[in-house]
Amino acid sequence: MKIPSLLLRQLYTNGSLTPTNGGVSFSLKNRLVDAKLTGLHKVTVDGNEVAGGQLTMTLDDGSTVIGTDITPTNSVDFPLSKVVRIYAPGIKVGKGVHKIALEFEIEGMGKIGFKVKDSVVVDEPHRVKVPRHEDDFAEAAIKDRQRFVEKYTGEKFEHLWQYSINPQKLQGNVEAFVGVAQIPIGIAGPLKVNGEHAQGEFLIPMATTEGTLVASYSRGMKVLNLSGGVTCTVVADAMQRAPVFVFESAREARDFKEWLNETFEPIREAAESTTSVGKLQNIDTYLSNRFAFCRFNFTTGDAAGQNMVGRATFAACSWILENNDTIRRFYLESNFATDKKASMVNIMRTRGKRVTAECTVSAEVLRQHLRVEPKNLFYHYGISQIGSALAGVNNNGLHSPNGITAMFIATGQDVANVAESSAALLYCDLTPDGDLYMSITIPSLIVATYGGGTGLGTQNECLRMLGCAGQNRVKKFAEIVAGVVLAGEISLASAISSNDWVSSHEKFGRNR
Amino acid sequence: MKIPSLLLRQLYTNGSLTPTNGGVSFSLKNRLVDAKLTGLHKVTVDGNEVAGGQLTMTLDDGSTVIGTDITPTNSVDFPLSKVVRIYAPGIKVGKGVHKIALEFEIEGMGKIGFKVKDSVVVDEPHRVKVPRHEDDFAEAAIKDRQRFVEKYTGEKFEHLWQYSINPQKLQGNVEAFVGVAQIPIGIAGPLKVNGEHAQGEFLIPMATTEGTLVASYSRGMKVLNLSGGVTCTVVADAMQRAPVFVFESAREARDFKEWLNETFEPIREAAESTTSVGKLQNIDTYLSNRFAFCRFNFTTGDAAGQNMVGRATFAACSWILENNDTIRRFYLESNFATDKKASMVNIMRTRGKRVTAECTVSAEVLRQHLRVEPKNLFYHYGISQIGSALAGVNNNGLHSPNGITAMFIATGQDVANVAESSAALLYCDLTPDGDLYMSITIPSLIVATYGGGTGLGTQNECLRMLGCAGQNRVKKFAEIVAGVVLAGEISLASAISSNDWVSSHEKFGRNR
Amino acid sequence: MKIPSLLLRQLYTNGSLTPTNGGVSFSLKNRLVDAKLTGLHKVTVDGNEVAGGQLTMTLDDGSTVIGTDITPTNSVDFPLSKVVRIYAPGIKVGKGVHKIALEFEIEGMGKIGFKVKDSVVVDEPHRVKVPRHEDDFAEAAIKDRQRFVEKYTGEKFEHLWQYSINPQKLQGNVEAFVGVAQIPIGIAGPLKVNGEHAQGEFLIPMATTEGTLVASYSRGMKVLNLSGGVTCTVVADAMQRAPVFVFESAREARDFKEWLNETFEPIREAAESTTSVGKLQNIDTYLSNRFAFCRFNFTTGDAAGQNMVGRATFAACSWILENNDTIRRFYLESNFATDKKASMVNIMRTRGKRVTAECTVSAEVLRQHLRVEPKNLFYHYGISQIGSALAGVNNNGLHSPNGITAMFIATGQDVANVAESSAALLYCDLTPDGDLYMSITIPSLIVATYGGGTGLGTQNECLRMLGCAGQNRVKKFAEIVAGVVLAGEISLASAISSNDWVSSHEKFGRNR
Amino acid sequence: MKIPSLLLRQLYTNGSLTPTNGGVSFSLKNRLVDAKLTGLHKVTVDGNEVAGGQLTMTLDDGSTVIGTDITPTNSVDFPLSKVVRIYAPGIKVGKGVHKIALEFEIEGMGKIGFKVKDSVVVDEPHRVKVPRHEDDFAEAAIKDRQRFVEKYTGEKFEHLWQYSINPQKLQGNVEAFVGVAQIPIGIAGPLKVNGEHAQGEFLIPMATTEGTLVASYSRGMKVLNLSGGVTCTVVADAMQRAPVFVFESAREARDFKEWLNETFEPIREAAESTTSVGKLQNIDTYLSNRFAFCRFNFTTGDAAGQNMVGRATFAACSWILENNDTIRRFYLESNFATDKKASMVNIMRTRGKRVTAECTVSAEVLRQHLRVEPKNLFYHYGISQIGSALAGVNNNGLHSPNGITAMFIATGQDVANVAESSAALLYCDLTPDGDLYMSITIPSLIVATYGGGTGLGTQNECLRMLGCAGQNRVKKFAEIVAGVVLAGEISLASAISSNDWVSSHEKFGRNR
Repeated sequence: MKIPSLLLRQLYTNGSLTPTNGGVSFSLKNRLVDAKLTGLHKVTVDGNEVAGGQLTMTLDDGSTVIGTDITPTNSVDFPLSKVVRIYAPGIKVGKGVHKIALEFEIEGMGKIGFKVKDSVVVDEPHRVKVPRHEDDFAEAAIKDRQRFVEKYTGEKFEHLWQYSINPQKLQGNVEAFVGVAQIPIGIAGPLKVNGEHAQGEFLIPMATTEGTLVASYSRGMKVLNLSGGVTCTVVADAMQRAPVFVFESAREARDFKEWLNETFEPIREAAESTTSVGKLQNIDTYLSNRFAFCRFNFTTGDAAGQNMVGRATFAACSWILENNDTIRRFYLESNFATDKKASMVNIMRTRGKRVTAECTVSAEVLRQHLRVEPKNLFYHYGISQIGSALAGVNNNGLHSPNGITAMFIATGQDVANVAESSAALLYCDLTPDGDLYMSITIPSLIVATYGGGTGLGTQNECLRMLGCAGQNRVKKFAEIVAGVVLAGEISLASAISSNDWVSSHEKFGRNR
Repeated sequence: MKIPSLLLRQLYTNGSLTPTNGGVSFSLKNRLVDAKLTGLHKVTVDGNEVAGGQLTMTLDDGSTVIGTDITPTNSVDFPLSKVVRIYAPGIKVGKGVHKIALEFEIEGMGKIGFKVKDSVVVDEPHRVKVPRHEDDFAEAAIKDRQRFVEKYTGEKFEHLWQYSINPQKLQGNVEAFVGVAQIPIGIAGPLKVNGEHAQGEFLIPMATTEGTLVASYSRGMKVLNLSGGVTCTVVADAMQRAPVFVFESAREARDFKEWLNETFEPIREAAESTTSVGKLQNIDTYLSNRFAFCRFNFTTGDAAGQNMVGRATFAACSWILENNDTIRRFYLESNFATDKKASMVNIMRTRGKRVTAECTVSAEVLRQHLRVEPKNLFYHYGISQIGSALAGVNNNGLHSPNGITAMFIATGQDVANVAESSAALLYCDLTPDGDLYMSITIPSLIVATYGGGTGLGTQNECLRMLGCAGQNRVKKFAEIVAGVVLAGEISLASAISSNDWVSSHEKFGRNR
Repeated sequence: MKIPSLLLRQLYTNGSLTPTNGGVSFSLKNRLVDAKLTGLHKVTVDGNEVAGGQLTMTLDDGSTVIGTDITPTNSVDFPLSKVVRIYAPGIKVGKGVHKIALEFEIEGMGKIGFKVKDSVVVDEPHRVKVPRHEDDFAEAAIKDRQRFVEKYTGEKFEHLWQYSINPQKLQGNVEAFVGVAQIPIGIAGPLKVNGEHAQGEFLIPMATTEGTLVASYSRGMKVLNLSGGVTCTVVADAMQRAPVFVFESAREARDFKEWLNETFEPIREAAESTTSVGKLQNIDTYLSNRFAFCRFNFTTGDAAGQNMVGRATFAACSWILENNDTIRRFYLESNFATDKKASMVNIMRTRGKRVTAECTVSAEVLRQHLRVEPKNLFYHYGISQIGSALAGVNNNGLHSPNGITAMFIATGQDVANVAESSAALLYCDLTPDGDLYMSITIPSLIVATYGGGTGLGTQNECLRMLGCAGQNRVKKFAEIVAGVVLAGEISLASAISSNDWVSSHEKFGRNR
Repeated sequence: MKIPSLLLRQLYTNGSLTPTNGGVSFSLKNRLVDAKLTGLHKVTVDGNEVAGGQLTMTLDDGSTVIGTDITPTNSVDFPLSKVVRIYAPGIKVGKGVHKIALEFEIEGMGKIGFKVKDSVVVDEPHRVKVPRHEDDFAEAAIKDRQRFVEKYTGEKFEHLWQYSINPQKLQGNVEAFVGVAQIPIGIAGPLKVNGEHAQGEFLIPMATTEGTLVASYSRGMKVLNLSGGVTCTVVADAMQRAPVFVFESAREARDFKEWLNETFEPIREAAESTTSVGKLQNIDTYLSNRFAFCRFNFTTGDAAGQNMVGRATFAACSWILENNDTIRRFYLESNFATDKKASMVNIMRTRGKRVTAECTVSAEVLRQHLRVEPKNLFYHYGISQIGSALAGVNNNGLHSPNGITAMFIATGQDVANVAESSAALLYCDLTPDGDLYMSITIPSLIVATYGGGTGLGTQNECLRMLGCAGQNRVKKFAEIVAGVVLAGEISLASAISSNDWVSSHEKFGRNR
């Protein structure tokens, strides 16, 4: 496969150009795919060329290798996210922007030429910086930062520095680590879930500092259990990145949309070349003005997949840019994904999992356990629909983010995704027997059982508590979250409606 | 002050009716204000009366008192959130709903009659329950639950049970406590803030498991610092509860809105009688159909104030219901507040703090440190506004929830409020000199430096790290959060735009 | 083709059951497709059967035919929208609801059994009714109504009764016709359009009573002409009906969505059996709760096509209901189409034509003719994007509905569609040379050059004025409308910005 | 009153600078208030001064007056919208921009100095223009244009040129008038309205070309009449203009909001100085970034009032700009009004009239006349609320714009306002007796019974038909429109639900 030039930007120098030992050094980070370096031929800085025999590459373990020593039979591993440092002697660079050109080889791709601009940044002398170390997750590095923080702020901290987890495992999860937030976990449930993936009763770990939250959800779960459990279904699954393409005019944008449809197969191949898990389902294109906003929809296995999808979409777009010459400009991000935002496009078209929880609760159970008449709860639901429409809300239910957030914190989800995961569509109805049917759809629930924070100490334990650690568990987890959310809705709805107030006029009147 | 009858519902029995020792007992919880009981005269259950001399009230410390022994000179403290248990001998109740009437006295309010329905709940024999104990935060209780969880799930947990904080202080923050989630904290910054309340440089604790987040925000902070810091301003402050009133027709609803305006003073007094901190600023009424949706807007000191405001609004509504006889129905909650949801009404009208962060970053600093041209970043901003409009998003910026969530988890905020705190309005412009002006308004940032989780171990320490623990610090905290958010916007915006792609056609063409 | 039972509801009795001459009569309206009756066998009312030999059918021209006389060789035309009246002797019906069963034959479909409930409505004696006549568009009928209106209101009308158009041609366009509204038409332009369908200069008829509207649009057109004309492109074309299907649970709804995709071909055939013009492009299904909301997207030739699409979707749904037994309930309409409403789904997914108009106007032309600097206009555009986001608006432009409405009234469009046609996405940019690029996308422009009001007197003349009367002209018309809209945007934007105000502080300051 | 300099921009030259007879002439239009010129002292063009004795002013009737002849005792009327032309001899101007300064006196305001830039526009020789004449509404002018249109298009028009109205009365309503659109009017009703202003039965003129519309609304009206009529209430009344003020930072914007509140009285006076009818109720300010978006809310009598409010807001802003020196920039328009757009701000905060129509229709009437069970209609309403939320719609009802548009066209409203008038909030409920309560709120209904097109021939006659021509009728008219809208909702809702489909599974099942 020939590498599209754009793709090379994923090998980048990361603002790291530094005058070093009478020469210049810079880092090269691999943000694309696992690869093997089979050659390092030349570096040119501002037109000054340095041949491979003079170049030195420093690897992770501190060992170094001369450029010409890297060969197909003596290759150097260059996996995803790896950073190597290259030193070229005899080149002088001052403050400001410089041009670097690099020639090297990658197994299976051949010789690659790569150009980038980078700048030498001279820090002001007095700038205070949080200490960073070579082995930044070593005990010494952490302690150094803790001391720095205490000195800088003039405060002493006791609890922050207490953690049982292994900091070395935090690489890739946090930078400048100093300690942990301890968030109390309460146990709600058990909750009986009748899912396609989650079947049985589950204890629910909820990390929160809001009093009554665990108790209120537990109350709802009891009622759901007494009604035979909650039925949960994942109805769609899609993680996306939404690049934007700019054209000469709307006409080319329209034709591009058609071209994308016709050319889907090689685009899919390019996208999937960067991932063994992600699968490109389709490209959903929205036209406006001279722009094409394209949602590249992937399935992402057990991962939430934002990064996986970002890389795959970038690779797909690199292919597209090489093969379509009507495009004038391109950005990988367009505010149309819409990551970490509440949006109508995600409510309609799904982001993460689209999952629905449903139950029919008998009037008797509601009266006994939540002291509310189904018809009163239903009457309030009707009014709240007007309130919702008038407020312009992304959620016509009551408080789904409470349960979602508590479970997200406990299980190592990306909690900022509460922004879009907070959307919900609640529907209530009375059955002919006067029982209450209630269901809620969460159209953009971003969850993972693999990757991100899900493998860390307490987070992974909470997933295990739910039987959701390991492969092929993400839909199970989504079902449980939806069930928990419905428990919270019925509990709070009952609390509101059990407290309603009806005038005596009303009692004797004909109207409500 | 005469207590409106509705207000008495805040003294409620909480589903606790139980056949006990040949009689019946039930709990009474005070959800209203601190009070002193100066008499307990009579309990009637389903018409069967039991006089004060036979009634026993059990207090917190396990001691008991006979009803007739409670007098003005021998009063019993009955503070907010306190639960007492009352035992009435000689009354038989079976499963189902029963009517309880209660007569007692409260200091300064006189004799109070109180009626409620409650039901005896008979649990199914085999129902599994999470163990609860008298002293539910004692070591033994916690251990018991830990064992239960491990037995129920068949898993062993190591990290979850590790915490340094004192569980006894968690009362009011969580139920069925078993342990803590350990969320890694990284330190970003320092960030220079030019606020009205926050002035100087601050180290920012961010609790997250998302790699690169801390680093990316730090990068933005460096750039803001090099531009003289970030200017932050709290422009509005309002926490609300939004009850709905139902009328015979739209006509009475309209007249009610006028009546509310004319009668504001006694309503304000009723509201503020329940809180020494909350101040009712105004009632913002929205009419639809036969409904009046009323936002009761309060300032709430250093607390986020949802509960404070709920109680105060309830008291105000109780007064309203006593004094206006056109109301047909009333609910304290109407989906118009809109708590834990993204909504247009909160974007327009503020919920929590409305806070703006601003900066002008020189072209030189952007080029040097983030390798982007201001005009390129600005061009992308223009396109992303179309993406935002087309997506129907609550945030035309890039990723404010990332910074907000990391700070919320670290500092003990109610993290579910990320739902509404995720809204933002981003504005960019180029100055005549080609520098970049960027500002972001967060219209519904829900923050506290007092109450909720802010007093807990690590959470309070993070607030101290920011100099935001204690009185009169909440606006300072809001300013810092806004500054952090802007740092994140400039960092990510630069990353997107430094990676843009322009066709060679373009380079020579006249149009972009 | 076997007719699904649901489809028979399109042959319906229209609330017309009447006791007549010792028997009963009722009307039968054909709302489905052109057909030929080849038999009329039996009518049963409340179980009382009347054989074909006794039945009389009255046709349009007043002639009657006996049921048994209708045969394959003596068929009766029964075109779309035709009403026939059937008389069955010897059956007594009182006030209230009655069951009618009907057996007849249709050419190519065979024998059809049809059941319906209908009620005998007894009008109150004193009810005032607008006079209706057998030939309701005859001069006498109209005059009778005019007299009635004048008598009822006690007013004399002069202009209303003046019209030059032929009332007999209004059948299908209006009921209870009395006269016409005379809406002044002004001529704007000419406007140079560089469309794919509209090419050249066009005089624009605008029907309006708002002063300065025609002049303002004309001013914009002059500027567009001086810039080489306006480039217009139709980028999508879709008219839809959105039925909702109700299921036992979300699970069946999800499976139904997949089934729809797999079963598209016969569904398309069923839909298209009712129309020679409409083509079913795809079914876009949105899942929520236990519901599937399905947008059936059609192209509809030169017609707006709401009715065509309604019939075709009904036929498709009839087929679906016969062939899928998981559906529990069905409605043809679900508030998801969304006809005559501003909606995000239409902005994203197109309703009617999605059309974009674009231009680059030189700074010189703007200064000379609209006295505005491009950069000032652009600065205001930036601010107005914040205003739009904060207002929650369906149109980030300025006033597209002004031009659209004036052209809709003039050319016989369904003017109520201004509701959705009012949506727009405006984008502005400065070129490197300081000129202004401006484009607007109208995502849901509902237009027709055939059907509805487009064939009437003045309306058709206005279409002819634009060269848009006749076949294959609807995209041409859409392009012209979009061009007119852009003319209005540039004209008003300039007026606003030429009037801006900048403080003297500002003039000397570094920031805007 | 000293005239703020900004206000002078309302006297403007309108792009009319022309080299004339060896000098220069330009027009001056008064867009502010009725005034009397009591002096014309000097004109300076590009620094070349011409004294009053040499200046000539041409008035409407073609007569001229020398500048020095205009004195307090020989004043010249200069009413709102009047244009005068001033000729200054001996000044040479070429193509391009020129500076004009003008000194004159206005009665009660004293001497006024006024500066403006204007440009000489040289039209291209071959540009085709629609003919305009001195007396542009004279028969000859109209005929000339008609001939031009026929020649330009090569078509003959018959109906367009037929009108009975007096074209001279169209001044201020249309430019380049050529003829009229003839829109068929059908009569619906009568409808019984129980309003506060409209009481009794009304025949409803509906101008439409959409078949079945009049019939469907009539059906709904019958049902409303049988239920005692429709209850209608105007609950709010506000027309606004929303200027934006730009500040150095958010801090000054916030302080400005407070200053506006404190300084309301003189601002109100300045606003109301331009109108005898409009009353400034309040200024509703929304802060974002460094901007203050201010809704100036007025009542406007019987006029819709957009122009009145525009002038008054401009005058208010002129006063503000003179008296507050923190403002950096100002625009009269900010996309926050939001004129001719569907927006959340108008749905929440009212634009024009906020009006509600309500009825309770008995189950019996619904069954008899619309063949639908209330509970079926109500069930569909519940589903359609989910459809509405999922679609992101500005109207959770069915088709209010149909009735509104037909009445707007008939009665001379600004039909483009259908964009915002299309918003609606529909609420349904079942009474304990099983009857149907239905109500609809139209939050931004823009209507007038005075001004705009309401005084024209057929338009005024339709208002008279409703008893709504003349003073103090606008709320009456709003009530009638709302009643008509509700008739349409009940009619269409019944049609949809009478056609619903329930599976046989369902009939025997326990759930719906």
